[in-house]
Amino acid sequence: MNSFGQLFRITTFGESHGRALGVTIDGCPAGVDIDLEFIQNELARRKPGQSKITTQRKEEDQVEILSGVFEGKSTGTPIGMVIYNKDQRSKDYSHIKDQFRPSHADYTYDVKYGNRDYRGGGRSSARETAARVAGGAVAKLLLKHLGISFHAYVSEVADIKVDDDYRNLDFSQIEQNIVRCPDPVKAEQMIEVIDTIRKERDTIGGIVSCVIKGVPAGLGEPVFDRLHAELGKGMLSINAVKGFEYGSGFAGTKMRGSEHNDKFFADENGSITTESNFSGGIQGGISNGQDIYFKVAFKPVATIMIDQDSVNREGDTVTVSGKGRHDPCVVPRAVPIVEAMAALTIADFLMRSKVNRLEQLIG
Amino acid sequence: MNSFGQLFRITTFGESHGRALGVTIDGCPAGVDIDLEFIQNELARRKPGQSKITTQRKEEDQVEILSGVFEGKSTGTPIGMVIYNKDQRSKDYSHIKDQFRPSHADYTYDVKYGNRDYRGGGRSSARETAARVAGGAVAKLLLKHLGISFHAYVSEVADIKVDDDYRNLDFSQIEQNIVRCPDPVKAEQMIEVIDTIRKERDTIGGIVSCVIKGVPAGLGEPVFDRLHAELGKGMLSINAVKGFEYGSGFAGTKMRGSEHNDKFFADENGSITTESNFSGGIQGGISNGQDIYFKVAFKPVATIMIDQDSVNREGDTVTVSGKGRHDPCVVPRAVPIVEAMAALTIADFLMRSKVNRLEQLIG
Amino acid sequence: MNSFGQLFRITTFGESHGRALGVTIDGCPAGVDIDLEFIQNELARRKPGQSKITTQRKEEDQVEILSGVFEGKSTGTPIGMVIYNKDQRSKDYSHIKDQFRPSHADYTYDVKYGNRDYRGGGRSSARETAARVAGGAVAKLLLKHLGISFHAYVSEVADIKVDDDYRNLDFSQIEQNIVRCPDPVKAEQMIEVIDTIRKERDTIGGIVSCVIKGVPAGLGEPVFDRLHAELGKGMLSINAVKGFEYGSGFAGTKMRGSEHNDKFFADENGSITTESNFSGGIQGGISNGQDIYFKVAFKPVATIMIDQDSVNREGDTVTVSGKGRHDPCVVPRAVPIVEAMAALTIADFLMRSKVNRLEQLIG
Amino acid sequence: MNSFGQLFRITTFGESHGRALGVTIDGCPAGVDIDLEFIQNELARRKPGQSKITTQRKEEDQVEILSGVFEGKSTGTPIGMVIYNKDQRSKDYSHIKDQFRPSHADYTYDVKYGNRDYRGGGRSSARETAARVAGGAVAKLLLKHLGISFHAYVSEVADIKVDDDYRNLDFSQIEQNIVRCPDPVKAEQMIEVIDTIRKERDTIGGIVSCVIKGVPAGLGEPVFDRLHAELGKGMLSINAVKGFEYGSGFAGTKMRGSEHNDKFFADENGSITTESNFSGGIQGGISNGQDIYFKVAFKPVATIMIDQDSVNREGDTVTVSGKGRHDPCVVPRAVPIVEAMAALTIADFLMRSKVNRLEQLIG
Repeated sequence: MNSFGQLFRITTFGESHGRALGVTIDGCPAGVDIDLEFIQNELARRKPGQSKITTQRKEEDQVEILSGVFEGKSTGTPIGMVIYNKDQRSKDYSHIKDQFRPSHADYTYDVKYGNRDYRGGGRSSARETAARVAGGAVAKLLLKHLGISFHAYVSEVADIKVDDDYRNLDFSQIEQNIVRCPDPVKAEQMIEVIDTIRKERDTIGGIVSCVIKGVPAGLGEPVFDRLHAELGKGMLSINAVKGFEYGSGFAGTKMRGSEHNDKFFADENGSITTESNFSGGIQGGISNGQDIYFKVAFKPVATIMIDQDSVNREGDTVTVSGKGRHDPCVVPRAVPIVEAMAALTIADFLMRSKVNRLEQLIG
Repeated sequence: MNSFGQLFRITTFGESHGRALGVTIDGCPAGVDIDLEFIQNELARRKPGQSKITTQRKEEDQVEILSGVFEGKSTGTPIGMVIYNKDQRSKDYSHIKDQFRPSHADYTYDVKYGNRDYRGGGRSSARETAARVAGGAVAKLLLKHLGISFHAYVSEVADIKVDDDYRNLDFSQIEQNIVRCPDPVKAEQMIEVIDTIRKERDTIGGIVSCVIKGVPAGLGEPVFDRLHAELGKGMLSINAVKGFEYGSGFAGTKMRGSEHNDKFFADENGSITTESNFSGGIQGGISNGQDIYFKVAFKPVATIMIDQDSVNREGDTVTVSGKGRHDPCVVPRAVPIVEAMAALTIADFLMRSKVNRLEQLIG
Repeated sequence: MNSFGQLFRITTFGESHGRALGVTIDGCPAGVDIDLEFIQNELARRKPGQSKITTQRKEEDQVEILSGVFEGKSTGTPIGMVIYNKDQRSKDYSHIKDQFRPSHADYTYDVKYGNRDYRGGGRSSARETAARVAGGAVAKLLLKHLGISFHAYVSEVADIKVDDDYRNLDFSQIEQNIVRCPDPVKAEQMIEVIDTIRKERDTIGGIVSCVIKGVPAGLGEPVFDRLHAELGKGMLSINAVKGFEYGSGFAGTKMRGSEHNDKFFADENGSITTESNFSGGIQGGISNGQDIYFKVAFKPVATIMIDQDSVNREGDTVTVSGKGRHDPCVVPRAVPIVEAMAALTIADFLMRSKVNRLEQLIG
Repeated sequence: MNSFGQLFRITTFGESHGRALGVTIDGCPAGVDIDLEFIQNELARRKPGQSKITTQRKEEDQVEILSGVFEGKSTGTPIGMVIYNKDQRSKDYSHIKDQFRPSHADYTYDVKYGNRDYRGGGRSSARETAARVAGGAVAKLLLKHLGISFHAYVSEVADIKVDDDYRNLDFSQIEQNIVRCPDPVKAEQMIEVIDTIRKERDTIGGIVSCVIKGVPAGLGEPVFDRLHAELGKGMLSINAVKGFEYGSGFAGTKMRGSEHNDKFFADENGSITTESNFSGGIQGGISNGQDIYFKVAFKPVATIMIDQDSVNREGDTVTVSGKGRHDPCVVPRAVPIVEAMAALTIADFLMRSKVNRLEQLIG
């Protein structure tokens, strides 16, 4: 279904070329300052047309709050938000009405639903993520009250890669360049690579890393709803994502237990902490108070400006021509989406963590 | 919560050293042949003590069906199953009552719940996965009726790695060796590595790959409940998992769109198919009828037989001694667990796919 | 939360005097004819200001479809709809900002959320039901394809009561009078009573009955999600509802088993049916193919035009004055709401009934 | 599905004549004293064979806790419990294998699932409620810590009815007689009526009333998950229930707003309270701190000891003979079931009420 979260839950609707996108946030506690400018700014980080290395579709992604906020604060009732589409060029898509674009969702939607809104990919378009970013912005506003912050950035494009230890990176640099990479030198190189590929009418993938700071210990549910499992689901639900790892990740499979174990010690304040953090801030599916960090793999965008062979509904060979306006590399715009899904997940688990012990119910 | 799935849903309970483990399968359609021997055999693939490279705890993991089956067939009502624990040696654990073992869930459970069943890790122990395997076995029995099969195997341990193209592997070899690797030569090498590490009282991680054959096109829900997102969540919910990727995965981030796109063509029967399968059988979150394949990264087991420094509840430094019975490498026993979670996910989405179009409701 | 249904699920948002109301319908199968005029007409049956015995607030309740419909048909993706508020007179409510109106939700919202949108009752206002009616209209459009129809009507106001056997009533008369009673004579009497009470600045309750025709046998889930339990929940969730009964209801408690049992027989076509229907079309929580019927009790509207004593936030005694525009009796406008909740429930269970047996998954 | 509740959730399994019944309680906070004797005592109040006016089946309903409790306290992990069946006489049922008993679930289960466990009604038997009572007992243990108590009783059988104002009743009398009626004189009359009907091999319905004391204000969710809507669903999900009303209920429909409104005032401690309580302790779907009270209507038991005409699978007329062991009137044993469902509902909403305001998350 089109909902994410248990206690802090968003439900989204909307197609790439439909009338509007929308999100309903259900479960946001009362009393949160709903800063519309902040929400709008989060949307601006995701919106198309923001630089030469993103799609040239022009959408202001102006969000309108329809309910759930009174005198600037959340009321505890559902927050409805809409973003009307403006710059649809649906004619660009009439040629794919009966064609299945390679590695797109055209074929699978057709099999599943029988009919589909083919314009711009309809519901399968990443345009839908605008609604998530609006929802995630509200989650961030809630979590800001608790000192929890999100730091996603582009860590890898082609063979350019930032320092693997995020503690060596300067997060204040992330928004200083159009690729959203915290290392200014690598950022320049990434931009150049992406721009070259764009000129070749092709696309490239990349990796977004994310660090979450300030998460208290105790978030996450044993067994199926482990914190990293739900985080992973959230990330894997973003368009074009092919993989997720947290803490030591795939590299950790090569390590020995004696190297990989994060030793506990009491810091100067008596707080229990760890020096290394191969656990990525999560042990047994529950946050341990350390930084949470993870990586998300994005495939190259399927829409390329080069003609490709494919088939139509009847199975006849057709040429899918490279038309429309698309991103040569999705990761710069994916950064706020990764943060949004992370914020939604943490907000949900934070709320779930408030009813774990009898004392919490009595107190 | 302790449930997984929407329409085909399991709910599990049980601790490592409690009285019993159990699973309730809710939503299994009526009329499925419930082959108890098959379920028991799946459990045997996961059970401890099956070889020299697994823990020496002896549990027969005898499953008992308490409801939901009549005259050998499912009735549509919930199937309750229990597995009583037999070979608990809870005394082995009294020393960790107040200690926090490194990279275990001791600390996080303590923070979350205030008290915990410390014996053998309690609910955080991978012993809980026996209940999943029992539930997954029923999902497999259901899916067998539709010709869907699951082929998980150990693909990587330390620096030993099987052919990355699974079409070059012989799945009939998987159960022929104790490490569950389809390449007999690599299997021997893996066993040797694990056994050496075991003798060094240490542990090592590894990777389990899985191929699902026979999944029809159309499974998976747009947006949040994409097929691979839910598969990923299921895998990430398994103990010790640090990462998940499907299709081209992390390697796909380096590719260009023109290389990565899977071109559609009509086969001799007129069926629409693809030659390459970087999509891993899933496009836009929905199965496309090709093989589904993915990889799951497991960290080294946290319990090592070497003494380690840690802290107790009061924050005092303590030595956690290497006692108990544990696996030097978790991947051989993880193979049936990966299959179980995959089967549960596919069964759920199969059911969800039956109500996507009006014709399905009328027909 | 603000969602209803499992497979056919609506999520609503919106306050009485907010910017807009909205509903997202998630799970509507693809291929349903979305007749906007029909939806608008359902809203017209509920809208304020339709007659002298309803509130005089003027709202056209114009609905706008934002997503999920393409070329007149549902696409299987979520259908977003909004209804903008027009005729708010929020000033009418400034006097109750700090007061708690008797038998309203002012006090309970205040305790629960700390702050509240007091204008017109905010989220607790029955204005929210417009969103349900829009959602229910889509459920009706789906069920129309299966020949399922809904017939709610006002059966009791004050001491005026229609024939208890609905088979003696002419449903075609329901929409012929402003009170929505199938008995024209009783309708006149009810209207007179309500109008008299209105002039006395007071309010009165009433009963809405509903008959659902054409529901196939097999809908409803054993144990907790019985068809009538979910129907009951849906009805009890409507503003001002105090009770629900189906089939023989409360009167059935006085009967003997030998009288109450509905005897099965095979009709001329060999179909298994019953003569009496004390079961109300539901046995063991599952529809049996007979007409489903039930009654819903509505209390008198709490807003009266007479001054009342109450308290403010500080506990000081205050006089709540009778201002604003309100219904003297809620049942005439409740008729389409009852139908909407019934349609949503049946649509959901219809979908759930498609995965009960193995043959349904294979076929 | 076979689950009830969101945060405090039970999942049950088991058939009348299967191997065992069971319940998994998911979400019970850690630290609750799990008093096994109390749970067993609750089961004893429901168990068959407890008096001459209940079925003579003999079941001790011995419950076994399999998980989730450590050193007498809940651990926050799921509590698994089983009750093995002992006194099955499945042979008593072979004659109904292909018959559909009137007003039973035989026919509807058959249509829905194709096959059914016909022994004793299988899953549709009220024997399933033993699992709910075990789950509800844990909810009561939790709520006892908060001073919340449940008082259900038989208020009406045939034409014998207790005082409608529960404040005139002595709840300490409820367990002093076998019919569970707080008025000793009426209790004797009810017992006589039931016993007479039993001798006539027939059955009769009745009404169970319930008062919940000590519920704090603020429980219940706006719109669909109103406190009374979920309470109503819980009650309607009990076998043989035909109706539910709370507060003024159906009688309230006859009242005027000016009579029905519960006026607020500040009591001597400054607490805001009401004198009358037509609201039944719930306003706008949210508890207001007053006593919650409601009534539940039970039909006469469908199994009578008199022969009845019916049909078999083929539609042939058959005689269903009155065999087996059954209750002449279900209400005395329904009392603990009503309390169990009420306790489960309140526990769930209590937990949900802990995350309504920002201060609750920060505090």
